Amino acid sequence: MKRRTYRKRNFPLDQIRRYLEPGPIVLVSSAWRGKTNIMTMGWHMMLGFSPALFACYIWEANHSFEMLRRSKECVINLPTTDLVNEVVGIGNCMGDTIDKFEKFGLTPVPSSEVAAPLIHECYANFECRLYDGRQIAKHGLFIWEVVRAHVATSPKLPETVHYRGEGRFMVSGRAINLRRRFKPQNL
Amino acid sequence: MKRRTYRKRNFPLDQIRRYLEPGPIVLVSSAWRGKTNIMTMGWHMMLGFSPALFACYIWEANHSFEMLRRSKECVINLPTTDLVNEVVGIGNCMGDTIDKFEKFGLTPVPSSEVAAPLIHECYANFECRLYDGRQIAKHGLFIWEVVRAHVATSPKLPETVHYRGEGRFMVSGRAINLRRRFKPQNL
Repeated sequence: MKRRTYRKRNFPLDQIRRYLEPGPIVLVSSAWRGKTNIMTMGWHMMLGFSPALFACYIWEANHSFEMLRRSKECVINLPTTDLVNEVVGIGNCMGDTIDKFEKFGLTPVPSSEVAAPLIHECYANFECRLYDGRQIAKHGLFIWEVVRAHVATSPKLPETVHYRGEGRFMVSGRAINLRRRFKPQNL
Repeated sequence: MKRRTYRKRNFPLDQIRRYLEPGPIVLVSSAWRGKTNIMTMGWHMMLGFSPALFACYIWEANHSFEMLRRSKECVINLPTTDLVNEVVGIGNCMGDTIDKFEKFGLTPVPSSEVAAPLIHECYANFECRLYDGRQIAKHGLFIWEVVRAHVATSPKLPETVHYRGEGRFMVSGRAINLRRRFKPQNL
């Protein structure tokens, strides 16, 4: 599939829900002791506007688990449909012996605030620092504060990929604007 | 918008991710001291297969917050696009003075395992009991165990609604099956 190239801008942190609340598959990049890794992740949610909090579940058997727990940093990268094969490939190999950036031809770009690299080919990148690690042991739940967001200037709406399990995905579809039916304080 | 009618069946709990992981807007129904309520919710995630765990953020200013915290039960109802006006209406009024089932013409159906009613018009209903309430005070995070699932027999794939903020929604789009690219143990 032909990959897209996105030009990005710094994006207001209190508006990142636009991209994460719809529930897309994301790629989590990490760095620890000179090595980087990428994992595919679908279990995540917004948890606050300001600070911009984001929670996710990571299985301890994933190679990324210890890298994230120890480095206390990550980047949440938002892939679009053109990267669906990479999303599946990354989710089906282990980062302990291979360099996933190299294997999947993805470009690591230095982050502004954290050691974990951005994935250049993704529509958006959210740099995160661990905000609350106390639920990691019991629930595998990492609560992150997003400290910087890079979002493509175009298109306005990314075509994202949402996982249904069993190898099946849903691609984001048409838009509905019901702004006129909202109370102003709820917008 | 014309509403759909769904015939439902009991559904395996370890497969409910099919419907929740893609990130749809859901309706949370609750019951406490003889009153019921419904709220619209977009901040949620899967947190386990078996037991089937589901986490969500609920703002303490919502009328449902105390009802859920005290009753320790809820139903997560999955609406489809035909209910998008109800989704917005429910999210833009307060349940302290009105009966939302009545106001929006929705049908409460008794649950099997919990006191909170199912919303008949929704594609799926997930009956939940509070599994871990220790993150409610700090993060507004409720961790539920889904104890029974009712899912429509047809269509296989519901047309769900995903919130982008600011009154804008994304409707679920086309399906991609990449099952052949997965390792069997990852399916």
